[in-house]
Amino acid sequence: MPQKYIFFDIDNTLFPTSQFLVRADENAINAMISRGLACSFDDAMERLRKIQEKKGSNYSKHFDLLVKETNGRRDLKIVAAGIIAYHNTKNAMAPYPEVLGVLMRLHDKGHKLYIATEGIEIKQWDKLIRLGLDMYFDKVYVAKQKNRAFYEHIMKREKVAGKECVMIGDRPDKDTWPAMLAGMYTIRVKRGKYEKESARGKAHKEICDLRNLPEIIEKL
Amino acid sequence: MPQKYIFFDIDNTLFPTSQFLVRADENAINAMISRGLACSFDDAMERLRKIQEKKGSNYSKHFDLLVKETNGRRDLKIVAAGIIAYHNTKNAMAPYPEVLGVLMRLHDKGHKLYIATEGIEIKQWDKLIRLGLDMYFDKVYVAKQKNRAFYEHIMKREKVAGKECVMIGDRPDKDTWPAMLAGMYTIRVKRGKYEKESARGKAHKEICDLRNLPEIIEKL
Repeated sequence: MPQKYIFFDIDNTLFPTSQFLVRADENAINAMISRGLACSFDDAMERLRKIQEKKGSNYSKHFDLLVKETNGRRDLKIVAAGIIAYHNTKNAMAPYPEVLGVLMRLHDKGHKLYIATEGIEIKQWDKLIRLGLDMYFDKVYVAKQKNRAFYEHIMKREKVAGKECVMIGDRPDKDTWPAMLAGMYTIRVKRGKYEKESARGKAHKEICDLRNLPEIIEKL
Repeated sequence: MPQKYIFFDIDNTLFPTSQFLVRADENAINAMISRGLACSFDDAMERLRKIQEKKGSNYSKHFDLLVKETNGRRDLKIVAAGIIAYHNTKNAMAPYPEVLGVLMRLHDKGHKLYIATEGIEIKQWDKLIRLGLDMYFDKVYVAKQKNRAFYEHIMKREKVAGKECVMIGDRPDKDTWPAMLAGMYTIRVKRGKYEKESARGKAHKEICDLRNLPEIIEKL
């Protein structure tokens, strides 16, 4: 079997990102209520959702806004309690249970493993290190936006052809479809926030977890 | 015995700040070396010291600079590993062993307990919450710079006279001397980074830890 260049997405592919973010928000809200955030848990969660929708992904400002909106004034004690609870939840993040074994088997077979992810580079490194996975990957590619050009750029940098590459991710629009356009073999894993999104025509194969990945790649 | 208004400094008064910061830096350096920082532990510590002296207190930029200086190029994997190790050390911070008991005894005696500290407000709250001490204090005063005007401002806000107040801290120049000028009774605790600094004429009393604080205050 020829050596393959295997590219993985991180979020909701290697670990349950959506679950963790919800749990981190819940723990933060509980910590803030215990320090004086003056509303119910459900109200606070709803307000936080609205702030997140309006403001994007910088959570510390979210908590600031939530406190100001709810209590009518700034209170850094409450904000600090929320941030600590949020980070403590993040400290407990772990990969999906099958991930470590699968990466080790692929690595032992002589495949080259890469990350191809979207986001802020240091934040993606932070996740890989906390997950204990950083040493399994030859290189990490981080794009501001995952599109066909990003996957073409990677292949050029690695001096490989599309047919030598496999891209695995949860999002048809970001992970499999643009990689497919760039000529890679693509596998969509159905889990996380985008589980219900259709991948019809946007991935070569769909799986529910990564357990059988070594066998699938063996047969390519 | 009359009720007193008792003000505490945080750093090196309630917990061994200097020790923790050194340990956090050491753990960060070890994590960075394990991810490819190309120098010895001692060299890295010395370089980090120099960067800290030159640049002030924003540690994430320190690690960035250290990696660039040492390896000749940016490497966010190494930086992320350093930041994680640094924060994990911070997560383990704990008060000096006698602190919790002393605060509880003072609180039970009906004294009002406050924090009077210098620094960035949210960072000081972060420490108090991680130390598990935030609920013992009626209010937290944070100054950009601790001087006589700061202590006078506190007394005005609390509507109390100097003779009803006690200020406890490790630094003669920041904690006891300016509070003394403002009319407070001052107690200097000799520990941490400034242990060897003389408090001659700059504090009413010197102690080595907080164990006997309730008795000292009883006799005022």
